[in-house]
Formats: sequence, structure tokens, C-alpha cells
Amino acid sequence: MDSEQLIQIGEIHTDLAMEARELAMERSGGSEPAGVNTQTEKQGDTLITRVNIETAEAGQAIGKQPGFYVTLEAPGLRTHDRDKWEEIAFLMAKEIEGYIARFQLGDDDPCLVVGLGNWSATPDALGPKVVEHILVTRHLQETAPPEKKGGLRPVCALAPGVLGTTGMETGEIVMGVVQRTKPKFVVVIDALASRSTQRMGATLQIADTGIHPGSGLGNKRIGLTPQTLGVPVIAIGVPTVVEATTIVQDALQEMTRMAPSLVSPKAVNQRELIGRVLSPYLNSLIVTPKEIDVMIEDLARVVSGALNIALHPAVSPEEVFRYLT
Amino acid sequence: MDSEQLIQIGEIHTDLAMEARELAMERSGGSEPAGVNTQTEKQGDTLITRVNIETAEAGQAIGKQPGFYVTLEAPGLRTHDRDKWEEIAFLMAKEIEGYIARFQLGDDDPCLVVGLGNWSATPDALGPKVVEHILVTRHLQETAPPEKKGGLRPVCALAPGVLGTTGMETGEIVMGVVQRTKPKFVVVIDALASRSTQRMGATLQIADTGIHPGSGLGNKRIGLTPQTLGVPVIAIGVPTVVEATTIVQDALQEMTRMAPSLVSPKAVNQRELIGRVLSPYLNSLIVTPKEIDVMIEDLARVVSGALNIALHPAVSPEEVFRYLT
Amino acid sequence: MDSEQLIQIGEIHTDLAMEARELAMERSGGSEPAGVNTQTEKQGDTLITRVNIETAEAGQAIGKQPGFYVTLEAPGLRTHDRDKWEEIAFLMAKEIEGYIARFQLGDDDPCLVVGLGNWSATPDALGPKVVEHILVTRHLQETAPPEKKGGLRPVCALAPGVLGTTGMETGEIVMGVVQRTKPKFVVVIDALASRSTQRMGATLQIADTGIHPGSGLGNKRIGLTPQTLGVPVIAIGVPTVVEATTIVQDALQEMTRMAPSLVSPKAVNQRELIGRVLSPYLNSLIVTPKEIDVMIEDLARVVSGALNIALHPAVSPEEVFRYLT
Amino acid sequence: MDSEQLIQIGEIHTDLAMEARELAMERSGGSEPAGVNTQTEKQGDTLITRVNIETAEAGQAIGKQPGFYVTLEAPGLRTHDRDKWEEIAFLMAKEIEGYIARFQLGDDDPCLVVGLGNWSATPDALGPKVVEHILVTRHLQETAPPEKKGGLRPVCALAPGVLGTTGMETGEIVMGVVQRTKPKFVVVIDALASRSTQRMGATLQIADTGIHPGSGLGNKRIGLTPQTLGVPVIAIGVPTVVEATTIVQDALQEMTRMAPSLVSPKAVNQRELIGRVLSPYLNSLIVTPKEIDVMIEDLARVVSGALNIALHPAVSPEEVFRYLT
Repeated sequence: MDSEQLIQIGEIHTDLAMEARELAMERSGGSEPAGVNTQTEKQGDTLITRVNIETAEAGQAIGKQPGFYVTLEAPGLRTHDRDKWEEIAFLMAKEIEGYIARFQLGDDDPCLVVGLGNWSATPDALGPKVVEHILVTRHLQETAPPEKKGGLRPVCALAPGVLGTTGMETGEIVMGVVQRTKPKFVVVIDALASRSTQRMGATLQIADTGIHPGSGLGNKRIGLTPQTLGVPVIAIGVPTVVEATTIVQDALQEMTRMAPSLVSPKAVNQRELIGRVLSPYLNSLIVTPKEIDVMIEDLARVVSGALNIALHPAVSPEEVFRYLT
Repeated sequence: MDSEQLIQIGEIHTDLAMEARELAMERSGGSEPAGVNTQTEKQGDTLITRVNIETAEAGQAIGKQPGFYVTLEAPGLRTHDRDKWEEIAFLMAKEIEGYIARFQLGDDDPCLVVGLGNWSATPDALGPKVVEHILVTRHLQETAPPEKKGGLRPVCALAPGVLGTTGMETGEIVMGVVQRTKPKFVVVIDALASRSTQRMGATLQIADTGIHPGSGLGNKRIGLTPQTLGVPVIAIGVPTVVEATTIVQDALQEMTRMAPSLVSPKAVNQRELIGRVLSPYLNSLIVTPKEIDVMIEDLARVVSGALNIALHPAVSPEEVFRYLT
Repeated sequence: MDSEQLIQIGEIHTDLAMEARELAMERSGGSEPAGVNTQTEKQGDTLITRVNIETAEAGQAIGKQPGFYVTLEAPGLRTHDRDKWEEIAFLMAKEIEGYIARFQLGDDDPCLVVGLGNWSATPDALGPKVVEHILVTRHLQETAPPEKKGGLRPVCALAPGVLGTTGMETGEIVMGVVQRTKPKFVVVIDALASRSTQRMGATLQIADTGIHPGSGLGNKRIGLTPQTLGVPVIAIGVPTVVEATTIVQDALQEMTRMAPSLVSPKAVNQRELIGRVLSPYLNSLIVTPKEIDVMIEDLARVVSGALNIALHPAVSPEEVFRYLT
Repeated sequence: MDSEQLIQIGEIHTDLAMEARELAMERSGGSEPAGVNTQTEKQGDTLITRVNIETAEAGQAIGKQPGFYVTLEAPGLRTHDRDKWEEIAFLMAKEIEGYIARFQLGDDDPCLVVGLGNWSATPDALGPKVVEHILVTRHLQETAPPEKKGGLRPVCALAPGVLGTTGMETGEIVMGVVQRTKPKFVVVIDALASRSTQRMGATLQIADTGIHPGSGLGNKRIGLTPQTLGVPVIAIGVPTVVEATTIVQDALQEMTRMAPSLVSPKAVNQRELIGRVLSPYLNSLIVTPKEIDVMIEDLARVVSGALNIALHPAVSPEEVFRYLT
């Protein structure tokens, strides 16, 4: 365990903007950070939080890129109920359509869907599994006249794999493919780590900031952002694991709050001790449900369903779970 | 979270006899429990611990069935190095051969290998994956004259699945098959939970007590024991996960010891607080390496290799990784 | 290529009773064999043929066990359209319900579903894949009072594997499990070879005769029949492949008929020549669509859907594709 | 069945240069075509045939691009014997090293390995499975000083998927990645159709001509050639299937030869009749061993082994099956 790891353990890391905002509010005694604009909406069981980080300073304060982040907290994702899935996919599709509208993209503008992650490592297989269910149409659409396209956008999809199995940065591969196939926008799906077991497998984040180095479950060094790809990027992140260090810290924090006579607030910062418990798999230990395989499969169906609805004007929510899965 | 769960969280549960012994020794101030006989041996990097629980009282004190337990702690299991694997498989095979000899079984006595667990749930897929690599010969041996059997024992193998996907207790299925196919002994492989992240994926336990209800990753209600099956049972258990509650408790305990001014010993027993952090997946949250798929695959090769060497007199350690995997 | 193989090549083998009947009719100049009673019904695109082989003599003439065989020829199976699937699953469920009624079984009588075949050999993986989608309830039902069972029959399911990987006859395993778990009837699913590429992946056969040695894609030596299991058996067979020898023979036969000046009727019987072309994989060469993986997956969903509807009174056709897949 | 299909059925298509040469020799009465230079060598059980198509005219006569083709016919590939595999991998590696030397590439020149095909369609999964076993090093090598590279070439690998699941031509994806990552040469692996069941799963072809539109199991419209990629290409093709039409034609041809009184030579050209037998899956029917999954897995290990030996100077044949698989 080297010193860099010790520092990471002590820091609170989250890939979710709404968690980053919550942490910032905790630190500042509950007030909304300056330059951050938040709006929430409840739809059935699903809580939608839209966080707009408006300035570079606000981004720095929160530890997230400035941009527009939408989070759907949907406990229904954890059920195995197709009705709930359809409802959530529909809500997610509407948010994605909002991004497409904000980018002023037309119904015929081609899209590249990129599923990050490693399909042979279950906790990191979400991206490739979403790609498997995407209704790809670019190869059929290219030569068709507009009136024959039937409400289907030209969509292509790629699961480029991870650095350890390809020897290439995902960013390099996607940049090369974007340059060659010239989509008007890119959708990127990535598995995230959450700070909370409640949000694991039950939360969907959409953002216009792209995927940044070091985020997600892989070890990306090149970003997949509007800047690197040259087109708008819709980043979809789904927390599928919690880092093992997180739940230990959380337990300590909770106890500090609930039982201050037993656990001193200083205990939370005893990084070395926490680290010793979790070694030797320190860097790679995750907390996950035993049924991780089913959870990933279910999430892939909802996310791909939402994308099929949002990307293709002719595809209705009813159809998407009826014909396309 | 019901009250039964609360109690479980507070209790220290382990499937490894050597961990149960260590816990008993901690409670009693470091002395070997009465009726327990322990011997250790170092072979290369591998530490072999043989624990003999000789009396019912000793079993109760330790929380394990009376019987003979051998544990191999082999850090080499975590490497991806075939030389190390061969070495460990060879050591494991020798221990298994010891059990076969103690049971006074002959080279021709038929054996049934049972891989417990669920092959479509990665952390619980070890048993079925071991079965995949077992050299089965019973169907070829039945009609062959002894001189033609060529040092191969009649071996058959079954991965019966888990209660949730079959609707049947594994014990029922195996009892039915044993009754029909009449093996002289049964080998059962099961994925276990360990108390320590160090032992996860790096430890192999062999026992003559069988598999008992409630042990392992599944929820067995019927045991697979010499009593229920009517023949000797060699139970092979491999810790592939650590329960999430365990690492939180461990962290607290460690801090109690190392920083008593920060964490009071009473904190360790604050089960509700720990539980709150880990809900809502409380019953099923596990800690595992991100590379869980690779770990399970590697372990399956070593365990099946050891079994192929131990069960078939004609199979040498060199051959087993050369021809049979 | 030994002489036994030569004989097999010349013989016309089919696992489908309706094909066996057609062949018998061809030999006899088109008339229905004595003791055979056939009825057909068209439902949408699906042709249902019910063949009753009433006497031992009729069975011998046709080369099938006496019994009641229902075949659904459903081109809709080859589409990827959930509406069609639901329609076919519903028709199939009604036929299965007919068998259950004829056996005079009640709604609460427990059932064991057995998926034959090898899940790691794609063309033979249908049975295990059906089992994966079966709604198993026996473990939940056993202790529930009748009024709480909610229209769900106690169902359990098993994929016992194949002789080559278990070392045991499937028949032995299933007999042992039946004896132990005491179902009132057994449903067995098996992948078959068809005589026609049209029927491959587009036909479902149901029979009350069980599975007989040598039928299906595996090499069974023990039957799974009402006689061996002691309870009624509903055997579901789905042709997923055509033997390579079959299409060569068919081509020759077709040419004999269409172009008798080019191909003499005697050519059809030139087994050695046909065999030479197909060696060295002679015994195991199959004809299959390149998309075999998708075909098997789709068939598994329809067959498991039909079984979930037929076995559980409370499960409706609409629900089955909505909640259970 | 449209007219284009009828024409294809009548034509004799093969992806193997040595088969194309054989067919040309048959047509011309046995003499080597002008501009074709062939050399054979026997190594153990393996027959190595090196065909040099030296002129455009020779290429046209044979129906293959001018270039240098090496074929290894290795019956040992069909065994499950690691010794044989090692031997064949070593022979294949030497041939690949020959290509690398002819291209005048250095030990440090970076290489991109591309596995064509669809990993979720078993008969077409060879390419992606080879990529899984490739020792990728580019991400480790980039920053290392030459003396630290330890005999490992910078290698990266990609399994881009197929048109039907990505919506993009494989050629587009690879061109984009080559442009971005700038390898000095590319190795492409593809599953082929053979004309002979003997060669299926038992033959390896290496060529310097790249992969051309319409070849292999997929439906490529853009080539992966030295011309399109701008760097040398080593194309590795392995026949994993025989087209169903092929074995029917072969049977007819064989009978024409052996039993001319029964089958007229004209019968071979009765494409419509042959087609009728094979519809409705006409375009996609393949002949394959029932154990297709095992065959693909074994081939992937040998081909990836050969590549790991040939690409990395420091990797020995013994090591490759010991540490890297």
C-alpha cells in the first residue's frame, strides 16, 4: 500500500454529481454551493434530480466538471418487473431527448453509442451489454432515402474493451472511430462506483460533460469528452458497485454521528487502519450484491431500452420491451 | 431488516475451521481449545494447517462439526502462473489422497464429484466450474475389465444447481443420485465466505464433515454429510468472498485495538448502525475483487487439477495441466 | 467409418413422429398407416398435427412408440417478434394442458421439468436454457397452505447435463431425483434432429411416450419414459439441427424425382459415397443456421413461456413474456 | 431464393488459396497454373503448403489476390492434446515470423491484432476469442526505455464486432483505429468457410493479401488490406465451417466420378434443386461439428499461442501454453 493509495482512501470519491453536491453541502452546513442550480422532480417512485454546475468555481468546489447532470433514483430498477422497467426507461428516454434537443440535433443526425467496460468482468460489463441491445441502423440507413428511413435514426454502436485487454486507451479507439464514421453526437455508457449501497443498481446519471480520466470502474487516462471527440457527448453512468473502502468509512461516519461516545470523529480519517483491513486486494475490492450478474443484465435492458426510445423517433416505449430485447 | 438479521450481523460467522479456531483462541486468550489438535507445515509459499476437532464439546466451543480439517493457505493461487498452480494442486492432491486413504478406499472405488453453486452467478460459480474440468470416466469404466482401466477411477460429476433455480434442495438431488449410482464416496465443492480479505481466493479447505445447512454462499437447508449420503464425504471449500458486514466489523475491531481513544470496544457491537450502512442489499452484499471472473476461473483450474491427480492414480501432476484443462 | 455407420447413413432417421408418418405414407403410396389416427388444425400461421399411434403394430410400421404426438409447425418461431412468440406459446400451452388433463392431474400436483442437453454445446443447449426460464415454485410452495399458493403449481427443474460431462446416464440421474422428490409428472425437453431444414427451429413436438434411448442430439442409453420414471411424462422435442447426411440424401432424392435422367433412384442408397464426403467428422456433422446461438435462445423463451402458462394456472400468456423472461 | 443466390450456389467458392489452386488444377487437367509457384513441406503430421500467386493473371485464373499464402494442414488441431498444439503453434509462429521478416519489420515495431467476427455467434467467434488470449503490451511499453522492454513487442488488440451488431463496417473501425494508434503492421484473424470437411477445424492459412470484401463468414464490404490500412497486413484465416451447399455439391460430384451410371455430370449444376433442399435458411446454413464450441475454443488457443510466440521475441513456445493461456 503506497502513499498515494493512503491519500485516496481518505478522500471521498464519487462519480455521481448529486453525491458530490451532497458532500459539498454537508461540508458547508447544508447550503447549496454558489454557481450550482438544482431542481428535483418526483415521477412515481422515481426521483429525478437535475444539477446544473454553472461555473468553473462551482465545479471546483464540488469536484465535478461544470455541466448539466440528471440523476434518476429509481428503486424500481431493482425489481424484476417489466412494467417498472418500462416506466423508468420512458422517464430516462425523456431526459436523454432533452439533451438531444439542447444540442439542437435533428432526428436524422447520426449517433455513435459507446459501451465502456469489460464484458468478461461481470461488475464492469454494463457498457458492452447495453451495446448488445442497441437497435443499430446506420448500415441500413446510409443508402435509404429520407422517406424510407421510417423514423429510425442512423445509429451505430461499439464496445471497444478496456486498456488491459486491448493495450489501447478507450479514448484513442473512440477518437479514431469518430473521425472515420463522423457521428453528430456520441452516447457513452459506463459503470460507476457509488458512495451508497442504496444507489448501487438503482440510479442512472446522464451528463453532458463526457467521461473524464480516472472516473468509472476502469482506469481511463484519456477522456471521452466534447473536447476530445469534437461532437456533443451524452454520458450515461450507472453505479454498479461501491468501493469497499467507502462502506467502512460510511460505517465509521454513521457511528460518529449516532454514537459519538463510542466513535470519535477523528476515527474516520484513520486511513491506514482501514486500508490494512482491506489489503491485499486493496485497489480492486468492491462491494456488490451476490446476484451481480442479474443486476447487470437488468440494468442493461433498461438503459438500452431508454436509448432505443430516445434515439429512434419511431420506437415507442411499449415496443421497446416487446420487440427489441 | 428483521431481528434475526441483526443477530447475525453481530455474530462472527466463518466457514473456515482454522478461522473458527483462531476466533476461539482469541476469546480464550490464545490457548488451543481443549479437544482440538492442530498441526502446521510449510511447503514453499503454502502454509498447511491440519485441525482435528476431536470431541463434540470442542466442536461446540469452536462452532464447527467435529472432524478433520486441512487448510492450504497459498498466496500463489492469486498469481496467474501455471507453475505455482501445479505446485499447489499437487500439495492439495496429496491431502485429498490422505483422506481417501483414511477412508480405506481402493483405487477402483467409484466417486461422485458434486459442484455446489450457481454457474450463472459469478461469485457462486466455483463448484459448477470445477465440475466442468473433472475427468469423468465412470461411463467408460463400467464395462471395462480391471486390466483395461488404466489407472483411472470410475468418476462421475454433477452440478445440481441451487434451490432458487431448481426449486429443490441440493441435498435432495444429491441423495437421489447417490442412491441410484452408488458411489463409494462423494467429493463436494463449495464457495465459502471468509473472514479475511487475505484468505479470499488464496485458501483451500478440505474436510471430512461434509457440507452443513447454512454454510457456503447458498442457503442450504439439508446437509451433504456422511450421515445424509451414507458414504464418506470429502468437502472442499474455497473462500471466494467476504461478507460486507465482516469488513466493517473488522475495521472497527482493528481500530478498537490500534486507536482505543478513538473507537470504544463497544462500537463493534453496534449492529444496527452497521446494518443501516449496508442496507438495502443487506443479506446479499459481498466484498470481492473487481476481477472476480478471473479469480473463479483460476481457482476452478487448480481445484479440478488437484482432484484429477488425487482421484486417478494414472494422472500425474505434470499431465493434469498439460492435457486435461 | 465402420459398417454400423454405413447402415445408419442409409437408414432414414427422424425424431419427429409426423415425419416418420410421412415417410411411412410415402413408402405405402400415400395412405395413412393402419392404427394411426391423424388430425390437423390451422391456427394463424401455425399448423397443428396430432398423430395418435394406437397399436404396437402401427408403432413398428412407423418406427415410433405407440402414443399421442402433437406437432406445431410455426414459422413464426423464426421471427424475432414477441407477438408471434406469445401466440405460439399460447397454442403450445393449450396442447400441454391437454396432456395434463388426459393424465387427470390436478392443479396442485407437483411437476419436475428436465432440460436435457449440454449448455456448453450451443446446438444442444436448448434443454438447459429452457430450465433457466422456468418459474420454479416447489421450494416456496411446500409449506404454504392451499389458499396461499395463488394458482402456482409446485414446479421444480433440473438440467442434469450429458453423459460425456457427468459420466452418468441422464436417465439414472433423473430416476434418482424423481424417487427422492416424488413429482406427479415429469416434463422433459430435448433438442432433436429433423429431416428437413424447413422444420429446423420452426417446429415443436409434444408426446406422451417419453424420451427413448438413441433419440435427440445426445447419446442416451436409458430412456426417460413413464415406465422408467413411474409417472406420466410429457416429452417436448424441438428440432434444432439437421444431420449432414440427411441433406445430402434429400438432395439426391429430390433430384431423382425432378431430374430422373440425371440421377438414378439407386444413387440415394450409395451410402459409402455420401459418407466419404462427410468424413472425418462423420458422426457429429450437423447442418445449422449460422445464427444458431440466437435460434436456441429464442426457442428457449417460447418453450419456457408455454410451460410457465401451462403449468401455473395463475400465469397468463400476457404476463409470461412481461414478467418472467 | 433470388437469382443472385442461384448463381452463387453453382459457383465454387473457397476462402483457401490452396483449395482455389486445386480447383484450378482440376479444371486444367492437373497442371500448375501459370504464374503460380507452390512448395510443400511435411513437419510431423503437419503439411505446409506455400502458394505464391505471382501475377495478376494468375490471381484471376485462380480467383485469389496475387500474394503469398501459407497453409498448414494439421490434423493434430482436432485432438485435445496440448503437446500437438504446441508443435503446431510453433510451426505457425515460424511462418508468421517469416512474414514479419519479409516485411522488414523490427522487433520493436508496434502491431495491432484484429479479431474479426461475432463473439456471440459460436461459429463466427474465433477472431474475438483469439484476441482474448493475445498478450497485449502496448500500454506497458509505450513509456518504457528500450532496455526495459524485455523482448516484448508493443502489441495491441481489438475485436471490433460485425456490421449487424455495430452498424459500422469493420473496415471503417479498423481504419480509424490504425490512423489513431499507428501500428507498423496489422494481423487480422477471420473464420473461413472451407470446401472440405477434412480441412474444417484442421487448417490454418496465412496470407499477405489482407481480408477482401465478401470473404470469411461475415459480410464485409470494405477490405482490410495493405491498401486500405496503409501498412502490411498478415491475414490469418481458419476454416471453421463448410457451407451446406458445398457438401451437397461435393456429394454429387463424388458420385458423378464414382458412379457415372447413377449420377450424370450435369446433375452437379442443378442449382435450383440443391437450393430447394436447403431453403429456407439458404444463405446461412452451415455444416459444422456438433462440438463446435470446443473446436472454436481449441483453435483460438493455438492461433493466439502462435501469435504470442511470433510477435514477442522473449516468449518461447514452452512458455506460451504454460503462462499465457
